[in-house]
Parts: sequence; structure tokens; C-alpha cells
Amino acid sequence: MRKSIATVSLSGPLERKLTAVADAGFDGVEIFEPDLLAGFPSPEDVRARAADLGLRVDLYQPFRDFEGVGAEALARNLRRARHKFEVMERLGADLLLVCSNASPETIPDDELAAGQLYRLAELAAGHGIRIAYEALAWGRHVGDYAHAWRIVRMAGHDHLGLCLDSFHILSRGSDPAGIEEIPGEKIFFLQLADAPLLAMDTLRWSRHHRCFPGQGGFDLAGLLAHVLRAGYDGPLSLEVFNDVFRQADTARTAVDAMRSLIALEEDVAARLPGSLAAVPPPVPPTGFAFAELAAPATADLEPLLTALGFARRGVHTGKPVELWAQGEARILLNAGVPADAAALTAVGLESPDPAGAVKRARALLSPVLPRRRAPGEAPLDAVAAPDGTALFFCRTARPDHPSWTGDFAPAGGRAPTGEITHIDHVALTQPWHHFDEASLFYRSVLGLRPRESLELADPYGLLMSRAMSGAAGAVRIVINVAYVGGHASAPDAPWQHVALASRDIMATARRLRAIGGVVLPIPANYYDDLRACHDLDPGRLRDFQDLGLLYDRDEDGEFLHLYTVTAGRLFFEVVQRSGGYEGYGARNAPIRLAVQHAPADGHHIALR
Amino acid sequence: MRKSIATVSLSGPLERKLTAVADAGFDGVEIFEPDLLAGFPSPEDVRARAADLGLRVDLYQPFRDFEGVGAEALARNLRRARHKFEVMERLGADLLLVCSNASPETIPDDELAAGQLYRLAELAAGHGIRIAYEALAWGRHVGDYAHAWRIVRMAGHDHLGLCLDSFHILSRGSDPAGIEEIPGEKIFFLQLADAPLLAMDTLRWSRHHRCFPGQGGFDLAGLLAHVLRAGYDGPLSLEVFNDVFRQADTARTAVDAMRSLIALEEDVAARLPGSLAAVPPPVPPTGFAFAELAAPATADLEPLLTALGFARRGVHTGKPVELWAQGEARILLNAGVPADAAALTAVGLESPDPAGAVKRARALLSPVLPRRRAPGEAPLDAVAAPDGTALFFCRTARPDHPSWTGDFAPAGGRAPTGEITHIDHVALTQPWHHFDEASLFYRSVLGLRPRESLELADPYGLLMSRAMSGAAGAVRIVINVAYVGGHASAPDAPWQHVALASRDIMATARRLRAIGGVVLPIPANYYDDLRACHDLDPGRLRDFQDLGLLYDRDEDGEFLHLYTVTAGRLFFEVVQRSGGYEGYGARNAPIRLAVQHAPADGHHIALR
Repeated sequence: MRKSIATVSLSGPLERKLTAVADAGFDGVEIFEPDLLAGFPSPEDVRARAADLGLRVDLYQPFRDFEGVGAEALARNLRRARHKFEVMERLGADLLLVCSNASPETIPDDELAAGQLYRLAELAAGHGIRIAYEALAWGRHVGDYAHAWRIVRMAGHDHLGLCLDSFHILSRGSDPAGIEEIPGEKIFFLQLADAPLLAMDTLRWSRHHRCFPGQGGFDLAGLLAHVLRAGYDGPLSLEVFNDVFRQADTARTAVDAMRSLIALEEDVAARLPGSLAAVPPPVPPTGFAFAELAAPATADLEPLLTALGFARRGVHTGKPVELWAQGEARILLNAGVPADAAALTAVGLESPDPAGAVKRARALLSPVLPRRRAPGEAPLDAVAAPDGTALFFCRTARPDHPSWTGDFAPAGGRAPTGEITHIDHVALTQPWHHFDEASLFYRSVLGLRPRESLELADPYGLLMSRAMSGAAGAVRIVINVAYVGGHASAPDAPWQHVALASRDIMATARRLRAIGGVVLPIPANYYDDLRACHDLDPGRLRDFQDLGLLYDRDEDGEFLHLYTVTAGRLFFEVVQRSGGYEGYGARNAPIRLAVQHAPADGHHIALR
Repeated sequence: MRKSIATVSLSGPLERKLTAVADAGFDGVEIFEPDLLAGFPSPEDVRARAADLGLRVDLYQPFRDFEGVGAEALARNLRRARHKFEVMERLGADLLLVCSNASPETIPDDELAAGQLYRLAELAAGHGIRIAYEALAWGRHVGDYAHAWRIVRMAGHDHLGLCLDSFHILSRGSDPAGIEEIPGEKIFFLQLADAPLLAMDTLRWSRHHRCFPGQGGFDLAGLLAHVLRAGYDGPLSLEVFNDVFRQADTARTAVDAMRSLIALEEDVAARLPGSLAAVPPPVPPTGFAFAELAAPATADLEPLLTALGFARRGVHTGKPVELWAQGEARILLNAGVPADAAALTAVGLESPDPAGAVKRARALLSPVLPRRRAPGEAPLDAVAAPDGTALFFCRTARPDHPSWTGDFAPAGGRAPTGEITHIDHVALTQPWHHFDEASLFYRSVLGLRPRESLELADPYGLLMSRAMSGAAGAVRIVINVAYVGGHASAPDAPWQHVALASRDIMATARRLRAIGGVVLPIPANYYDDLRACHDLDPGRLRDFQDLGLLYDRDEDGEFLHLYTVTAGRLFFEVVQRSGGYEGYGARNAPIRLAVQHAPADGHHIALR
């Protein structure tokens, strides 16, 4: 039989996947959409490359959440489909996988779904394209192949058939014998995957995924309050089976464990009248005072900072450190710390009570750093975050406290010219082993609230990402980690970044474009997808594409952002939030990661 | 509140855990039984060390599958408990965690369970010990704390109370408010763990754990037969979301993928009358011809091989290779291949048709190695296994085929003297990324049947282990891999071993003891546990302990084994199977792993 494989099954960029697939003797390939979107080769390029390699593009996938929707959503979905059919024509693909709607809003009405799939098939037929409808095991309403087949039969369109996926059939324990009743010509495609028979039950959860209090999602303070009200007076004891902790440094994990219990005691004290927390209260930071970069060759960063609108405003009186500023955004370039390449080494946090913040950090067993103070300099209290980044607690230019800015002599020269107002967030890649520890550190020591962990697809594996933020988004810190074992075989990419808030990102982007070569290029395929998924003004979309801007929105507002190329371990992001958007453009992160890997993957994009 | 932690929460050996726990400021510790069993310090040593560190031994755990059993099992379980109470007295622990019975045979009768727990508590009281009964979330009959409390209340014994574990309560969504109804003095212990709110459903299974056909547990040939009977004539396409493949070498994974489809086509052809497999049939090996060791300093291994009863029987006529033999067990020592230290580099497999075996390997895309043949030497067909080990297909001393042994000149000297009859199995540690590939390779290329994958606890993480065997155990190969990401922070230990079958392991063990220093020492704590768990003849048990023998049994028979110390990457195991025992002593592997790590962990055991 002919043999095919979905590009998602392999690592690396799309071109490498195609070569490997052809070399292994496959006849065809399923193009997994994210692989196309994150790459620079156009659909025509991919088509030509596949043809050169003797590979047929058997399927384009997936198209999600189409059927069982209201009239307005249907119109939007058909519009999105039309865009995708155009991409498929360019790609030379004539079969589209549509998986059953998994959205909670799906209307459970087979006739409605059949009618809507008929319309989709009719539209597809005009492009010479066929639709393979697949029941996802977790489909909201349609979860097994027999149900999908009933709907396809009801629709009765030549261009509509089934895609069968062994995982979705066998993972649910569906009886595959019923497949024999389906006419073979209506089975448009067969996807195969095996899987270990995992007991995905509490036992497995318990044996591998436990973590220390405050690192997961349980309401442990609530539970503990009940136990204490019952009169229990024994110890609090941690019993944690965790695949990562099993490999981590013993002493460090023990400290992390103790920190979790101290924070838990504090949480429960807040719920039990009459009991008292044993630790000083948190002193939530109110903003970023600065980001400090180790910059062995300071001059390398100057054109970029200048293009961003920063100006050199001060020079440290005792060290080779420059202060670059714009609005409330301040970047310190430190040429005096040993480093191979530019890297983010310290973050200044605005604090209403620096000494109190350090007291709390110490009570929570965090390493307090010795004060770096020369005679006449302002005292700076600092702790080390789990990845080694120094966190300084600052009061910038307040009458009640010496300001660190007093250690800098004015540098003269021009004033800042740009639209940057402040640091929106910093993103720190954590060493393997330290992700849970970092979550707990930022939550307990700084009092930030963790958001949900997200999985981001990198060409060489999955990343976990978790944002932590203070009230009203005053301080946002994003921590990232490779999901499994580090990227053993992948190009080394422990990237950090500083995200700057712009009040007019279009203006900032134009300023950057003017100097050339500093904005991370974004594949045209991304903008094709943006066009399909959002009803954006064409002129605005064209501007986004011209300027390398990425776009996201949620129910609360919009998010525009762009990335600079990488210098050393570091790059900058420029962001503009509107409405109540509180996210980080996570859906765009895989695009960014793929492009950042591009030079190592042999692409033509020149990063500095 | 007092703070405690279970030793299972941390990595490394027990002594390092105790130090780390004390340094982090904990007041006490739960001793997780496997940590005690796998370590040399006696219970008294652990007690003294904990006391020195200011740590109380708050709990000993776990004691499993006690209650809700028949009279005979109860007697056995009480006997086992008595042994454990003695260990606890030596350890200075006065609280034992008993978790609810998870065995499928548990009798669902609360009064029976209460009565039996009463008897356990009564026995414990005589030792000044209390019993903390815990509902496991996956307990067969008792799965939540309210149920456990009903039983404890019914039993009504002062020395019987509850252990509450936040994981077991919150993972099941039990309402913790009911805890307040329990008298505090009956809550003997509280264990805390958090956990991410994992959607342990098909979606997560699908997104992370798919694998190629033949690497998991699905009956894909059965499914495919149904699809083909339906008349489907499209391609077979693989869609595999897998955390490991995402990081693996692209080209290699593509070949692995193709191999899986070729093997699947063959499987389905066997089920569909009239269809034909496209690949030559498997040629299952019928035994081990030899194990070849790279031995840069051949002399280092001679005393060990001699003590095992081997004799030098031949010298290769063209290469610096010696043949050591005993019964059907043959070891080649090759001083001519570059290697830092002794390592297993090749395995000879007895094959009824070497050329056919190579044809099959080639059809399944396995790298066929160039024949290493000098003029006058016997031809040797070989393929490379996924970890690089060369597999030679041999016909040893058969009239129909040249024998590789013909290339060796007799070495004269003494004849073998020992009890070793043949090679029982070889165990190969796979590079991270190659575990699934190796499973499929041995299954499809050699026609071996995979057994279930097991998780083995190593002090620095979990190992996955899977045995593959031919009909009647003719050939057994065990593959191991680090479960998560490799042991980044752990001592490097890619151990391989050759297991030799002895017809009288006691005699072999005595022979080894006579030369001294070559048998891996086994902690006395292991024998204390053996005494508690099995009703073994005391004299026999004493012999086991004297000789460093480990013991396992199942419903089919018994297994005795011992390990030698490690030379280079390699060690030997000696095994004796009786009855129909087909396992590998997996329950003893964590003991072995802990002892093998001992030198790096600063223990006193001298390995060569």
C-alpha cells in the first residue's frame, strides 16, 4: 500500500522533515498546518520540494471546529475554509482533514452538522478538493467513527468522506469491526498511530506528577484548614512522587519543599481566624525599575537600543555600566561582568519596601545576595531567582529612600525619542529541574499569581511556559522550560527576552524597519493564516506583514507584538496591549521559535 | 507546625536525603521503605544518623495489601507485619502507614477489614507502634478518607487511626469538609502533595504518548484488516504526537516510522486470506552463540571469567580475540577494537538461516553491517541494533554451514570447570530517544515478543525496562532507558550486562566468593525484607545472604540471581530459573541500581 506520514510525527523544520520522509521511502506526506505557518517556504515552494522528492501531498490538516455551529459562526468558518482551499491549491493538496468540533458551544444536532458539512463539501468541490471528516476521541458531540459516518452518510456529498484515525478509534475502545460496513470509497484517508495502554488514572497521576504545595492546582490551604479544625496536631509531611524531582539536586529540592510548607502555613493562617502567619508579609512589586544586561561588547547593542528610541542617560560612577532609558523603561548595559555574549543577568523591581521584601525572601529560604555597595552608593537589596537571575528591590527616585539612579552620572546627549513607556514583561528560560521551583518562588517570595501552564511547540520539542503576574499586571514574569529532558539533540537555545511596552507599536516598528535587519522576519504563511482566521482590515493586515508584527486577540482585547533578532542569549519584544488583553500572544510563540531556530536549520535568514 | 517529608520526594541515596532534609530545616522524615532496603546503613545506623541531624523518624511506609483478606493471607500478613515492627523498633519509628488494599482479590467487607486492622493494631501496640490507615485513591474497595474513617471507627482501637493524604483526597474530588467531623486525635498523620490539574483523558494521551505501530499496545493489524475489508485503497498514514520523537533525529525517526508500516503490512497480510507479505519471513534466533566484549585490557577480565568457571578455549587466527567458553556460553574478548573500558559490543545469535535473517533485516530497513571476513574466515552476517550493538547471525558447529568457531585455533590449557550452561539474556541500555525504536526493531527484525514495559526506581530517576524474548525463552534481550530526559545530574551509568545461566547457582556463588571482591554486595536490609515477605527456610535465607544472592518468585517458579561488580560499562549476572519462572527479578533491580550508584554516592563499597 502507499505509505504516508504526517509532518507532526517528526522533529525539525518542514524541509528537513520532507527530506527524511522521502529518504525513508514514503510515498506521500500529510502537511500539518503549523509546520507550514512557521516556515518561510511558500506553499508553492513546499509543493515543488515535495515533487522533487517524489512525495505526494496526501492531506492538509487539521481544520477544526467547523460544524454544529450557529449561522454567524458558519459564515466565518466557510470564509476561513475558502482561504485554506486557496492555500491547498498552491500546495497541490486535494484532501482536507476536518476534525469533529471540540468546542463546548457545539450544537448537538446531527442534521445541522450534516447540512453544514454538505455546504463545506460543495465549496471544496469548486476547488477540486475533498473533505475527510474525522471523529476526535474528545469531540464535543461526535466522538466515534460510527457517529461521524452517520453524519457523512446523511450529508451525502461526493466530496465528503471519512478520515479514520486508529488512535481515536482504539483509545476509546470502539469496536473497529463496524468499519467493514462503510463503503471503501467513502473512507478517504487512514491515519495510524499506536499508543501504550496507559492507565491514565489516579495511580499514574500520583506516581509521576505530584508536586510541592503551591506548585500545582490543589486547594491545599482549604484542606489543611479542615484538618486543623478537626484538631490534628501532628506534622505536615510532604509525600511527592515526581519524575523531575527524582533527578534533581537533593539539597535544593529539600529547600524547595520546605519553602512550600512555609507558604502553605501562611495561606492557611489567612483562613483560620486567630492563627498567625510565621513569615513577614509579601511586598508585591509595583513595576520594573530596570533590566540589566551583561553586555561584553556594549557597542553591539547601541544601534538596536537607539532604534528602539532609547538614549544613554547615565554612566555609573564606579563601574562600567551604562543606563539607557525611555519613559519608565530602563536598560543597564554592564560591560564589567564576565559573559560570552549579551544576557539578562538582573532585574530591578520597584518595591514599596525593599527591606521588607528581602526579609520575606529570607524567611522563604531564598538566597539573599550580598549588597553590592561601594562607599557613597545607594544600598541595593537583592535575592537570587532559581535560574540565577538577580532580583533587586528598588525605590526609583522616591523621596523616602535612596535611589539606585543616584549612582549614575548624567550622560548628557540627546533625549529619548521613541514610544516605549515601560517594561511589559521579562521572560526567563529555566534550567531543566527548576520550573516548579521557579513557579513557587515567584508566587511565594514576590506574591505574583501564576497563570495556567501552556505547552508551546518548538521544532525540537515542547516548551512549558507559565506567566506570573502581580495585581493589575504591574509586574509580569514568564518562565519557560523544555518539557521533556532538555533539547539534547537540538540547537542550544536558552533564550531570554525583555518585552517593552509601546504606546504606538506601528511607529516603533517603522523606526526599527528604517535601520534594517533588526526585526525578526515572520513567514508570509503566517499572514495567510491571519487573513483566514480573523476578519482584519486588509490595509492593517498589510501593515502587519510589512512591519513583521504579530497579532492576537481574545474576548477582552487585542495584542500586537514584534520580536528583534537575537543578540547573544537575548532578544527584545515590543508589545502593545489594547482593551483588557492580559495574555502574551502564546499562539504566535511557535512561529517565533521556528524562525529563531532557522539559522541553525540552514535557512537563509541572517540573525545578528 | 512540625514539618516532615517522605524520603521518596528527593533524589539520591538515603543518607544524602537525610542531610538535605535536615539542612532545609525539617523536623522529621518519613522513611520510604525502598530507600532503606536498597541502602547499606542498618536501621540502627539510620536512626543514629537521623538523631544526629535532629530529625525524628515520624513514619515508616508503606505497608500494603493488608486488610480484607482470607484467613491464610491474614496470617501471612500479620507475620510480615511482625517483621516490619521489629525493623521499626530498630529504626526508632512508632507509626506505620498502612494503605488500603489495592489487590483485585480484596474482599469488600468493612467489618472484616475493621476486625483485621484491629488485630494489626493489637499486635502493633505490643511494640509501642501505632497504625495510620490511609485510603489510596485507587484502593480496590476503600478509596476515600470517609470510608477509611468508617472502618477505623468500627475497629475502635487506640493504636489505629487515619493517615490523610491530600493527593488521594483531592485527586478524586472528595469534599475535604468532612474531615472536620473526625476527632483530631484519630488523625495520626497528614501527608501533603500538590499536583497539576491534569486532564488525564484521551486528549493528553493523544498529544504526548502516541507511537508508531508495533511500539504500543493497540491491535492495529486488526483495525487495518477491517479497513481493507471495507474496500479502502488510500495510503497508510502515520500521525504520531510523541514527546520523544519531537526531539529525536528526524531522518532516523522517519526510518523507524517506515519500518513500522512494513511490519504492519506483514501482520495484516497474515490475517487477510489472499494477501501476501512483501517482506521475507522472520528467522527467529534459537539461542546465543556468543557475547563479544571490547576488552582493552583483556587480563582484567580473566580472573572474573575464571572464577565463573570459564576457560580460554581458542585464539582467533587473524585478530587479537580470545574465545572463553563453558557449556554453550561463549565470551569473546576483543582487544582489537578501540574502547576506553570493557563494553559489550556484539552479540552472536544462533540462527537456522543467517542469510535469511539478514534479508529480513534489510527489508526492514535495518543497517546491515559489512562482512568482516578475511580470506579463509567463515562469513558472518550482521546487522546493527539501534544502540549500535552488532548482531551476528551464526550457525555454530553445524554441518550445513561454516562455523565462526573455525576461525579460532584451540588454545589448549584446562577445560571449563563451572556450572554455567548458556547465556540467559543480555541487557542493553539504550540511548535516550531509541527505546521505542529498539522495541520495534527486536520485535520486527528478530521476531521477538515484547513483554510489558516496567518502571524501575533508580536513586536518580526512573528507568523503563522491557524484555523481549523468543519462543520458549530461547533468546532474551532486555532493553533499558532513562525514563525522563536522561540522568542529567546523575552519575553516568549506561550499564550493560550479560546474564549467565547456572545449573547450580549456589556452587557458582561459592566459587566467586572464594576469590573475593567480585560479587556485588547486597544490603542486609534487603534480607530483612525477604524474611518478612517470604516464608523461606532460614538456612537457605542465610546462604542467600552469605553469598549475595537475590530471590524472586511468581506463581510459576523461582528465580535466584547475583551480580558481579562492574568492569568498565559491563557487569555479569548469574541466574538460575526453576519451575516456569519467565521474569528477570525486576523487584530486585532497584536494589542493584542503588548499590551500583553507591561509590559515586560516597559509600564505602569498592567496585573494581
